[in-house]
Amino acid sequence: MDNFLNSTSTVPEFVGASEIGDTIGMCIPSVDALLLDHLHVQKRFTVIGILSSRTGAGPQIMAMDEAVKATNTEVIDIEMPRDTKGGAGHGVLILVGGYDPSDVRSAIQVALDNLSRTFGDVYNSAAGHLELQFTARAAGACHMAFGAPEGKAYGLICGAPSGIGVVMADTAIKTAGVNVLTFASPGHGTSFSNEGIVHISGDSGAVRQAVIAGREVGLKLLAQLGENPVNDFPSYIR
Amino acid sequence: MDNFLNSTSTVPEFVGASEIGDTIGMCIPSVDALLLDHLHVQKRFTVIGILSSRTGAGPQIMAMDEAVKATNTEVIDIEMPRDTKGGAGHGVLILVGGYDPSDVRSAIQVALDNLSRTFGDVYNSAAGHLELQFTARAAGACHMAFGAPEGKAYGLICGAPSGIGVVMADTAIKTAGVNVLTFASPGHGTSFSNEGIVHISGDSGAVRQAVIAGREVGLKLLAQLGENPVNDFPSYIR
Amino acid sequence: MDNFLNSTSTVPEFVGASEIGDTIGMCIPSVDALLLDHLHVQKRFTVIGILSSRTGAGPQIMAMDEAVKATNTEVIDIEMPRDTKGGAGHGVLILVGGYDPSDVRSAIQVALDNLSRTFGDVYNSAAGHLELQFTARAAGACHMAFGAPEGKAYGLICGAPSGIGVVMADTAIKTAGVNVLTFASPGHGTSFSNEGIVHISGDSGAVRQAVIAGREVGLKLLAQLGENPVNDFPSYIR
Repeated sequence: MDNFLNSTSTVPEFVGASEIGDTIGMCIPSVDALLLDHLHVQKRFTVIGILSSRTGAGPQIMAMDEAVKATNTEVIDIEMPRDTKGGAGHGVLILVGGYDPSDVRSAIQVALDNLSRTFGDVYNSAAGHLELQFTARAAGACHMAFGAPEGKAYGLICGAPSGIGVVMADTAIKTAGVNVLTFASPGHGTSFSNEGIVHISGDSGAVRQAVIAGREVGLKLLAQLGENPVNDFPSYIR
Repeated sequence: MDNFLNSTSTVPEFVGASEIGDTIGMCIPSVDALLLDHLHVQKRFTVIGILSSRTGAGPQIMAMDEAVKATNTEVIDIEMPRDTKGGAGHGVLILVGGYDPSDVRSAIQVALDNLSRTFGDVYNSAAGHLELQFTARAAGACHMAFGAPEGKAYGLICGAPSGIGVVMADTAIKTAGVNVLTFASPGHGTSFSNEGIVHISGDSGAVRQAVIAGREVGLKLLAQLGENPVNDFPSYIR
Repeated sequence: MDNFLNSTSTVPEFVGASEIGDTIGMCIPSVDALLLDHLHVQKRFTVIGILSSRTGAGPQIMAMDEAVKATNTEVIDIEMPRDTKGGAGHGVLILVGGYDPSDVRSAIQVALDNLSRTFGDVYNSAAGHLELQFTARAAGACHMAFGAPEGKAYGLICGAPSGIGVVMADTAIKTAGVNVLTFASPGHGTSFSNEGIVHISGDSGAVRQAVIAGREVGLKLLAQLGENPVNDFPSYIR
């Protein structure tokens, strides 16, 4: 899997696309005011960047978290369709706003470039999937999507089917002293995805240790449903 | 793809079925009063028609919009499951009420017959889909499902993954002076489908022009995700 | 399809797994108090059992209903993701609580053992599915998930696409004098699944007769969408 060559597009709004999660990045340099009234954004900007995918919400959100740190842009909307092309999880729609189209295009490009990293701890099998994420310093995307305190370490520990996520969460929290932000499950904090997800923050070393412990038990449990889950990209949480 | 031969059914409620979207049409000539208390209908009728599909909400709703204009029936419920058999969109459940079983059966049949037309501007690829709809005069189905003012021209411009729908909407609105009814997205106005959908109304020529402009940019953007989207039936919006 | 051999697992929480619906059963002997604060349970227990699946909510709920009758455990949470691996229905997450890990493990094991029975009246085709359930005496799982009065006969009659469930419900209710609890549909009482589901209770014979009548018409209607629906396990409702 790799990024597409984007040089052929004749649409000025197009920034880039990736086979990873069927992710497309776009930028509207001057959004129509009538449309802006109807978009569900937290803050009005006329320059709007868009990152939209079929598969994966967490990886795109983490990638955008890096992108807003690196550029003069802000996350203004994150929505999670119940998608993944028939899988158990979410896709995502992320809108960012900025003052300068080149900033916003750059933010979208940085996010696209980060996808092969943030998909590194997504493990799939026919029966389900696991997702692990970690950042030493959360920014606006993690804050809006998951309630992560900005500037602090943040971790995401997710298992599907959702019951696996319950045991992963229990193991993770028992491993290290972390702060539990929320536990998301099919009926609470997800768009009815079949995921159990604990969101944690706290000391960087503790959060990382908890995420790694959750991953270890999750890999073993999901394997009980028939095949070993595998990641398509190298793991980044070590 | 074609309609099935329906002559073999021994169920009196059966009206017809279509491979298009796995759509089935039925009519209950005298619905049980106990059930009627629990159905989520806007108005009580004892004769009830049912149009139900796995794939496609818009095409069935547009088809039913024609059907209620042509018969003495009313749309009394529209609900949208998050379905499409693993795709990014909706299926639909439409209930219509009437006073005479032959009217209601006729409405269901008209809707089934319209499907190959209203699926004409549905474009699919492995990565997503587009849907465009237009009517010069909206009736009860478009009103209930999308808030379209009855009797006025109405257009639907939809892209999946949802970010494509944002750019389609922006392009469409900038093209012609139309009234923006709502912008639906994964977290607002959909059942968590991965669609960005702008609903517009206004002058017939302007609405049509906006829909066509949205389609043009949508086809180019979705093609960036790997393959050209194609429609299974001839386009009807020209 | 059969249960896996579970002897190889090295995770202490693991109880058992089944290919049927990709169902995994686990038990946390002493759940972390911090996690318990964030789980969405009706009552606090430190011993927690988990039954989680990709496909099938009804069968697992009925199986757990038997399990809580047979053990000293209580159902404390039931959530229904919009899953079934691209199908039209739900998966499920069930949490049970108990005072003794061996009770809870036993409840999970009883539920897993019941799956091949409670999947007996699930009928699938490429276009949709039917599900029928019946118990002469509902317990806590049916009560929490479907509002069934405990200790009374309960029946579930479900069709997908959802319109088929409307006709099944009408036929069932007309067949025998039963109490209609609710009618669930894509927008009401489901997680946007494409199912029409009537929940009934009352006299055991009447409920059973109504369920059988619903099944009969449902099989004929779903067959109109191209192929005869089949069950993977022997029917248990006779």
